Amino acid sequence: MSDRQEGVLYGVGTGPGDPELLTRKAARIIAAADVIAYFAKRGNRSHARQIAAELFAEDVTELPLLYPVTTELDRHSPAYRAAISGFFDDSAARIASYLQAGHSVAVLSEGDPLFYGSYMHLHHRLADRFACEVIAGVTAMSGCWSLAGVPICQGDDIVTVLPATLPEAELIDRLADSDAAVIMKLGRHLPKVRRALLASGKLDQATYVERGTMADGHFQAVADKADDHAPYFALILVAGWQARS
Amino acid sequence: MSDRQEGVLYGVGTGPGDPELLTRKAARIIAAADVIAYFAKRGNRSHARQIAAELFAEDVTELPLLYPVTTELDRHSPAYRAAISGFFDDSAARIASYLQAGHSVAVLSEGDPLFYGSYMHLHHRLADRFACEVIAGVTAMSGCWSLAGVPICQGDDIVTVLPATLPEAELIDRLADSDAAVIMKLGRHLPKVRRALLASGKLDQATYVERGTMADGHFQAVADKADDHAPYFALILVAGWQARS
Repeated sequence: MSDRQEGVLYGVGTGPGDPELLTRKAARIIAAADVIAYFAKRGNRSHARQIAAELFAEDVTELPLLYPVTTELDRHSPAYRAAISGFFDDSAARIASYLQAGHSVAVLSEGDPLFYGSYMHLHHRLADRFACEVIAGVTAMSGCWSLAGVPICQGDDIVTVLPATLPEAELIDRLADSDAAVIMKLGRHLPKVRRALLASGKLDQATYVERGTMADGHFQAVADKADDHAPYFALILVAGWQARS
Repeated sequence: MSDRQEGVLYGVGTGPGDPELLTRKAARIIAAADVIAYFAKRGNRSHARQIAAELFAEDVTELPLLYPVTTELDRHSPAYRAAISGFFDDSAARIASYLQAGHSVAVLSEGDPLFYGSYMHLHHRLADRFACEVIAGVTAMSGCWSLAGVPICQGDDIVTVLPATLPEAELIDRLADSDAAVIMKLGRHLPKVRRALLASGKLDQATYVERGTMADGHFQAVADKADDHAPYFALILVAGWQARS
């Protein structure tokens, strides 16, 4: 029986990059939050924070959640998994102490919180114990096909979201088997993805997009992209609809 | 050489239903538009218009684009396709005349304009001739998994968006072959989809969501949904991430 209510946890999507692509609800929640948390790598700025910072209340408490240094560990090793899991446990405990003290906490998440977002690790640990609301956001892929003006799918199209990390043969099969596709996390996998697009007959429908809705975003046909350099967050859109029109 | 500039065409995503899930950019464009166009069936209200109407300028020109009556035609027949194609041609021509006269035109599109939206039929016909910008929106599926608090995918998960209209055997294969899935346009296909979820081993990960981010939206495990009634716009989420945690 406390005379102070517990705070509410908000998972807030900040959209694909342009601060104007925050939803009105996200803007309201961010401006009213007592505590604003965001994930970041040590030494890097949080992209989600950059998108939303102009909205923070003057007396807000910022809670950066800094990933542990794990460069010496294999990402599939038990040691790596234990380090990351412990980090999420610790982050959830820090947020829980603010919620218990009656403060509202907004966790910023680039794009949409439950679509490839780290927020879900906190949600999983806290949603059973605290009042919690997820504010949907515009995904990076929506930002990219809107920038490029590529109608991605229509009617009964099947859309597949694929990581570029898949083996080449699997990429070929899955591209051949989908009307539309989005290939994420391109980075050093571009040469393999280009070969898979060619082999699956989808190269002519494929658009390369870099830095989606940022001020310096750009796009071009994959067939016209001569070099094999791509940043990690670049993606490729395979339009389903144009193929039939 | 006109002394009046042509207007800009905006394809504006209005998000999944809650007017607060409009982006700040969508709200600005809608409030400033000279002409606001939206698709609707004759005798039905436009859902996108309902979401955004509070933002319309007082002297705005509304341009409802009413689908032709085609109930007597087979949807795959040449006659149906000709009627729909003619309707989109006519709609584009009406919008073009406003743009030529120097008016800005915002076409409202539920969810995200280029993700299963009818706006793309206008974009396809007008984007080569007029300045044009697409404002990405929150998709219906994002609204649904946020309401239900279902983390849909993480890391290298493969996500597939499937129409419930697919044959049962194909649904089974594609569900078994994906980490996460969204099944759209449920309606009368719910019994078939339920069988496919069971056969593919995904029933326990499946959540049924109705009226996503509307005030009366609700969700439940598919396994707990006893009856086979589902509206056309209900969908099913198959969580990829929870399966592994």
